Amino acid sequence: MTEPLPHTLQVGLGARSYPVRIGPGLLARRSSYPEDLVGADVLIVTNDVVAPLYLDAVTQALGQRRVETLVLPDGEAHKNLATFAGIIDRLAELVMHRDATLIALGGGVIGDLTGFAAACYQRGISFVQVPTTLLAQVDAAVGGKTAVNHAAGKNLIGAFYQPRAVIADVASLDTLGDREFRAGLAEVIKYGVALDHEFLEWLETSLDAVLARRHDVVAEAVLRCCAIKARIVEEDERERGRRALLNLGHTFGHAIETATGYQSWLHGEAVAAGMIMAADLSARLGHLDQAEVQRLRSLLLRAGLPAVPPPIGGRQMGQLMAMDKKVARGRLRLVLLSGLGEAYVDAGVDDDALQLTLSLADAR
Amino acid sequence: MTEPLPHTLQVGLGARSYPVRIGPGLLARRSSYPEDLVGADVLIVTNDVVAPLYLDAVTQALGQRRVETLVLPDGEAHKNLATFAGIIDRLAELVMHRDATLIALGGGVIGDLTGFAAACYQRGISFVQVPTTLLAQVDAAVGGKTAVNHAAGKNLIGAFYQPRAVIADVASLDTLGDREFRAGLAEVIKYGVALDHEFLEWLETSLDAVLARRHDVVAEAVLRCCAIKARIVEEDERERGRRALLNLGHTFGHAIETATGYQSWLHGEAVAAGMIMAADLSARLGHLDQAEVQRLRSLLLRAGLPAVPPPIGGRQMGQLMAMDKKVARGRLRLVLLSGLGEAYVDAGVDDDALQLTLSLADAR
Repeated sequence: MTEPLPHTLQVGLGARSYPVRIGPGLLARRSSYPEDLVGADVLIVTNDVVAPLYLDAVTQALGQRRVETLVLPDGEAHKNLATFAGIIDRLAELVMHRDATLIALGGGVIGDLTGFAAACYQRGISFVQVPTTLLAQVDAAVGGKTAVNHAAGKNLIGAFYQPRAVIADVASLDTLGDREFRAGLAEVIKYGVALDHEFLEWLETSLDAVLARRHDVVAEAVLRCCAIKARIVEEDERERGRRALLNLGHTFGHAIETATGYQSWLHGEAVAAGMIMAADLSARLGHLDQAEVQRLRSLLLRAGLPAVPPPIGGRQMGQLMAMDKKVARGRLRLVLLSGLGEAYVDAGVDDDALQLTLSLADAR
Repeated sequence: MTEPLPHTLQVGLGARSYPVRIGPGLLARRSSYPEDLVGADVLIVTNDVVAPLYLDAVTQALGQRRVETLVLPDGEAHKNLATFAGIIDRLAELVMHRDATLIALGGGVIGDLTGFAAACYQRGISFVQVPTTLLAQVDAAVGGKTAVNHAAGKNLIGAFYQPRAVIADVASLDTLGDREFRAGLAEVIKYGVALDHEFLEWLETSLDAVLARRHDVVAEAVLRCCAIKARIVEEDERERGRRALLNLGHTFGHAIETATGYQSWLHGEAVAAGMIMAADLSARLGHLDQAEVQRLRSLLLRAGLPAVPPPIGGRQMGQLMAMDKKVARGRLRLVLLSGLGEAYVDAGVDDDALQLTLSLADAR
């Protein structure tokens, strides 16, 4: 097992390196916000679901600083340029300067929006991620991807901009709805399926304890995901190569989210269905056998996740995927599996096989 | 003198290094857009003044590529988030991918807007600066500052994002209006006054040839400015220190621009008046003698630039300056002169002296 809580790991990016701290109770602890990471002027950006639960605790822990807050409506539908502009307006209204710090208190939407505002306000101010969802703790908060959505595609407008620190309080997951917690598990499972067979086995063994939200076991899962992600981001911060492997299930998944208006499917749910589609296609290409696809399906189902896409039509899904960022020069680049725990990028996917996989999204 | 035209200099920023090419006729030359710098899918962003003059020439020079265009209305008033969103919408509508290239054909407004769109679209695509104003050739196009304005301040929203190349065609300045050309000269003079006494002397000698727009002399002026700027950007890309010296006259100047609604004063004109205010304040602090202030004033007047601020009121100007990005923790940081050719940052300016300088902006 690992060392006692809290865990700390470092994302090593030279002058832009930062710590990821993982453990129960961290968000309310003064020591989570040392002066060298968080300046004297702070704007906490959060949403109307998280604010009643944790805003006071974070504000208290920030002590004698000037602490301002901006509470946004909850939900992916608000992750757009208008909400981004609202954060900028608030910073300007408060006459916040270059040495101000933004704190993103919430899930991936809050983190992506706040990070993008931090990247752009006065060409870049400090920000700290305090993720309160499992999805944000294992994925969105680490690695510096910030963005907002556009009608034409998810995360179409954004920046690579690293936080100064990530404070992942696993106790904050206790208040997470069951569906959202399970959606976050899709990203946890993704790390194992894409990159770490041993972690996949650990998950199969530990899933019940994770689902029971045992702090020590959840913290270990978060730590292992963040460690995998940190190593990849260190190698390939701007996703020119290997970082793309973390997008397993995402090209399919984004198409599902776009087709369903970012509303009825949670991101993690779309990624789960997307992973199954990636596995299905990998099997059609002869890289996986049916037992392996079934093993992934079983794990997703145990985690309460969808293992089939919604009936949005394979044709529409194919069109939406063509707009995805991973298309280069008209050619679709998909993250597929050469085995469980071994993802690769396929830039020349056989179209017939792809069409068969897409037909999983036809009305049944 | 310098080598025959065109000149090329390199901005050295590791993997993000890029060439700046300076000479007459470059924008219409196929060799200005080699395949390793400009991909197969291009969107040229320009404005309705520049398009009739140079858009065809650039399009022709791009040869067999897919070349799309977006023609924006001219003027600083359009350098805002709405116009930025329009560029993004156009890229999305054209289904441009990560390997697309934006070309900014125009002045500083086009360069700043296009660069910011390039920084944010799909978290960063390539862009090339083809500046067609003197101001953009010597300043805005080089160094990676991109931004849009906000009601609360100039360049409040932006990114540090370097172009892949800068193509400064000095022949394109032949069509520039006299007032705009002179406004660009304010930035040229700034380099001498802030950082290079010998260049200041060269300018005093060569001003008539510059004003006559002799291609060889203008190219040398542009080269010398870009060389000074390149060395500073290499040392301090994100303006943590020395790069701030390039803002001589800009804190006063931005306040003038904001107070006059970015309309009646050109940026360079505001910088000229701002430089005089910086010199006036430096003299009050005992760093310059009146003869030196007068020498700067003479050069600005010879260049047809304003050497006094508009009567916007010293009080309002002080308030606007308090919002400026160079304020840190409530304290105004001003770029002042310890001599002609020697700027420094003063973070503890005597308030009485500042008020006297600001009173230059009181109604006369």
